[in-house]
Amino acid sequence: VKKVPEGVIERLPLYLNGLLQLQAQGRKTVSSKDIGDLTGVNPAEIRRDLIHFGTFGTKGIGYPINHLIRTIRKILGSDHSHQIAIVGGGNLGSAIANHSGWSRHGFVVAAVFDTDPRKIGTVVGGVRVSDVALLREIAGQEEIKIGVLAIPAEGAQLTAEMLVDAGVEIILNYTSTIVQLPARIQVHNSDPITELLYTLHYLTTTEPIA
Amino acid sequence: VKKVPEGVIERLPLYLNGLLQLQAQGRKTVSSKDIGDLTGVNPAEIRRDLIHFGTFGTKGIGYPINHLIRTIRKILGSDHSHQIAIVGGGNLGSAIANHSGWSRHGFVVAAVFDTDPRKIGTVVGGVRVSDVALLREIAGQEEIKIGVLAIPAEGAQLTAEMLVDAGVEIILNYTSTIVQLPARIQVHNSDPITELLYTLHYLTTTEPIA
Repeated sequence: VKKVPEGVIERLPLYLNGLLQLQAQGRKTVSSKDIGDLTGVNPAEIRRDLIHFGTFGTKGIGYPINHLIRTIRKILGSDHSHQIAIVGGGNLGSAIANHSGWSRHGFVVAAVFDTDPRKIGTVVGGVRVSDVALLREIAGQEEIKIGVLAIPAEGAQLTAEMLVDAGVEIILNYTSTIVQLPARIQVHNSDPITELLYTLHYLTTTEPIA
Repeated sequence: VKKVPEGVIERLPLYLNGLLQLQAQGRKTVSSKDIGDLTGVNPAEIRRDLIHFGTFGTKGIGYPINHLIRTIRKILGSDHSHQIAIVGGGNLGSAIANHSGWSRHGFVVAAVFDTDPRKIGTVVGGVRVSDVALLREIAGQEEIKIGVLAIPAEGAQLTAEMLVDAGVEIILNYTSTIVQLPARIQVHNSDPITELLYTLHYLTTTEPIA
């Protein structure tokens, strides 16, 4: 598979979710219009994107859905398994650990960590919660490259540094803290409040205009 | 406040989080370099962004932090209160409802809904969980414009439509389902798996290169 431009890669997870929805409905082939209707992306753009990785549809029939899913997974890197560590065994960490989609996308929740002695030893998402003091050791053993911060904002920076020390390269940060890490580390911020702040200005205002 | 370009608005929530972190450390003034160090944005770009809304720093002193925070909040629309409904009173909904940052940003979790009779009537994040059958009525009464989908993927489309019927304009979707709604509705997808799929290709591979 040759190098796919960044802009194309940004749309692939969306296409993949759309294709999985259509596959679950029993579809064997899919047109760029089908994917477009579901994802809101222009079908012409979808066709241009798919050509980048040598996938060509057949006129009037479309793309074979299983092949397309396999190809996208290969490009994204979700065609093989990735171990994840979740730091925080509270409501949020539990919800993430119990997500039903992990195994379907090749992810394995390999470890859950907490500092609270009442949580350590309990089972969350099928995994026994470990003391965060063992993070480095366990993350190394399990070859964990992905970490999820599901903890209060105050502990985010220190915990993120611990994850990086343990070999983690991708962090999904559910706190509002901006964590400062080496540039090679990919941090995806998922704080619900920050996400809402991006969209508030779209609200139709009902207030008198000054 | 005059019209601020979309590209600038996209960086404001990041600046705001950075400024709140610096304010919590007792800072009264802040330079573009301080904000840049924290957020990873180039200081020259920050200065250009801030000029868009008529905020000028003083050379050698910087920007007054409280004024800057107030201005950004005004532009984002988080300077006044917004009511939120969370659909799903499970682990994820509870975690979101219990987020400590809502009130600081002017958000009020006004309602939590569930379909499970064992959850209805219990208290989550200080709010009594209501039957989802009452969504339209309660969302109308509470003037709720923002909805959070914290439910299993299967129910996402139908529940999103219920939220829109009830007057919601912004949806934070924590499921992997692509919901199809009128274009005027802002949907922000926050499924952890989809978010990780965007970054997987950055992982340094330890596999033999073919």
